[in-house]
Amino acid sequence: MTLAVRYVGPRTLDTAPADTVTPGPGEVELAPAYVGICGTDLHIYHGDMDQRVDRPAVLGHEMSGRVVRTGPGVEGWQPGDAVTVMPLRWDDTCPACRSGHRHICHDLDFIGIDSPGAMQQRWTVPASTLVRLPASLVLDRAALVEPTAVAVHDVRRAAVSEGEKVVVVGGGPVGVLTALVTRAAGAEVRIVEPSLRRRRIVEGLGLTCWSAADDVQGMVRRWTADAGADVAFEVSGAAGGVTTAVDVLAVRGRLCMVAIHPRPREMDLHRFFWRELTLVGARLYDRSDFERAVALVADGTVPAERLISQVVSLRQAPKAFEALESGGDVMKILVRCQDDAQGVAS
Amino acid sequence: MTLAVRYVGPRTLDTAPADTVTPGPGEVELAPAYVGICGTDLHIYHGDMDQRVDRPAVLGHEMSGRVVRTGPGVEGWQPGDAVTVMPLRWDDTCPACRSGHRHICHDLDFIGIDSPGAMQQRWTVPASTLVRLPASLVLDRAALVEPTAVAVHDVRRAAVSEGEKVVVVGGGPVGVLTALVTRAAGAEVRIVEPSLRRRRIVEGLGLTCWSAADDVQGMVRRWTADAGADVAFEVSGAAGGVTTAVDVLAVRGRLCMVAIHPRPREMDLHRFFWRELTLVGARLYDRSDFERAVALVADGTVPAERLISQVVSLRQAPKAFEALESGGDVMKILVRCQDDAQGVAS
Repeated sequence: MTLAVRYVGPRTLDTAPADTVTPGPGEVELAPAYVGICGTDLHIYHGDMDQRVDRPAVLGHEMSGRVVRTGPGVEGWQPGDAVTVMPLRWDDTCPACRSGHRHICHDLDFIGIDSPGAMQQRWTVPASTLVRLPASLVLDRAALVEPTAVAVHDVRRAAVSEGEKVVVVGGGPVGVLTALVTRAAGAEVRIVEPSLRRRRIVEGLGLTCWSAADDVQGMVRRWTADAGADVAFEVSGAAGGVTTAVDVLAVRGRLCMVAIHPRPREMDLHRFFWRELTLVGARLYDRSDFERAVALVADGTVPAERLISQVVSLRQAPKAFEALESGGDVMKILVRCQDDAQGVAS
Repeated sequence: MTLAVRYVGPRTLDTAPADTVTPGPGEVELAPAYVGICGTDLHIYHGDMDQRVDRPAVLGHEMSGRVVRTGPGVEGWQPGDAVTVMPLRWDDTCPACRSGHRHICHDLDFIGIDSPGAMQQRWTVPASTLVRLPASLVLDRAALVEPTAVAVHDVRRAAVSEGEKVVVVGGGPVGVLTALVTRAAGAEVRIVEPSLRRRRIVEGLGLTCWSAADDVQGMVRRWTADAGADVAFEVSGAAGGVTTAVDVLAVRGRLCMVAIHPRPREMDLHRFFWRELTLVGARLYDRSDFERAVALVADGTVPAERLISQVVSLRQAPKAFEALESGGDVMKILVRCQDDAQGVAS
């Protein structure tokens, strides 16, 4: 019998027996090793996505694991292969797919939200979603590949280039990963974060972090000799974060919208006009982003181990969600899906 | 003695004697022939820009005219030459200028707002602002070059390309010019405009115009086989216009912000994230935009004569501003600055 962490209703998770799904044609059964808890998982937990999410729903889309068995017609994968999953299924027929943007398919199946996720002991997914992990990359760190792919995509959408000055508003996991990928692109970066404990974690990674209570606009002016920042990433999800991200930008600056703002936000459109600013939305990733993320985690550019605050068992996962609600002082919590994680991760 | 139209305080213009300014080194004295009344002039008239505008202020920045005399050191210009003016003076030292974006200089002098404008019988400006008009272009039509340059810049900022489907929200002069320049770029265009009288004018130009009261989003879906528009221009300045412009866009669509929104507006940032939309601010123009605008007005691609609703004398200009307040049923009103316009325009 295998176990799964399930969302059963607002602020209620359980751990329950789950059916294993025999892999059909083109499918692969995996043994998830580690699954990260994401901000989206918290939104689901809070009941904010009940219109979209079936109940009970198995959560989890930031994962690492190993192949257990393959379905008919699957080539190139063997039991034991270390993998992560790019959790997207598109319809290949909608206008977005036809225009080459399959990752934002009109009818996207985001596996772990729209269909069962990875927080379980066996998980059957299309073989097309698998991304190979190098043998050198231990599986707990590899669970950070998916959020790193988000950051890679964001930095690419914002077209960050060498020598640019970049402000990341929000110092949670995606903000920190965005800052690390930005730095890897040769740009200078400052993070703005209200929580003192998070600022200390961020600074421990060698990143410069400012308090959101500071005169951030003035600090950016001094940093940039009055020009303003070339790029800002809004990763906070807060109304004030949007304002800060707009205010710090130089003429022709680019604001990359990473955070989810479920409610409309007031924007200073006059500033967009006056400085000829650009706002770009960035969502998810494509395979090239995922492969780059594997490389950045594997070579230590993204020091994944330093972003992992805690590892809990499947049975402890519901408690971990409760603890995350108090927020602020943790980065990433991983759920260890197998009883003997050593055996899986070796 | 020469005359000028002056803003003296909210909703108060007068026509008063003005000093002629002897052209200094690098300057040219012009005899303005026709000056268009722009939305910005109306904002000034309403008192909305009192913090920026000295009083009394001579208005006007959409003009055509002839050279009267040149100051020391001016080469290449002769009395009688037909010209329009690109009414910008930049400081060449600020971060915007240094990064090559002089038209959005941090300390821009917009002539006609920040310094005396063209609605007078003699006007002294830097020779560097002059743009030559072809002999074939009559001077009343040439007064439309400046707003056409705005449209050229907007279409360039939005990177409109052949075969794209474009929605212009707002069917006033800049909206119509944007639609005409969009069409000249080989794209298909629809205008959305609430006023029936304006819709009739727009349709008279061979453009398709929808009522803002229609189900615009549904109409765009049918027009684009469910994809959405590639580009939207927000030219209305209204909160509802912003919503429409965001809602009609396809995945990876671009929204070009042309209108001035003095107050922050609520924006559906989730839609920017979800569809990976881009918002670009567009302000003013550079010399290449101006020269392209001269060509488009001269060759009739922009049928300027059909956008001119009325021509009034300098002495009638204050009354024309009052009439414009009632709005809606006119496009462009020109002020004829010389008593004998025939003599100037010949």
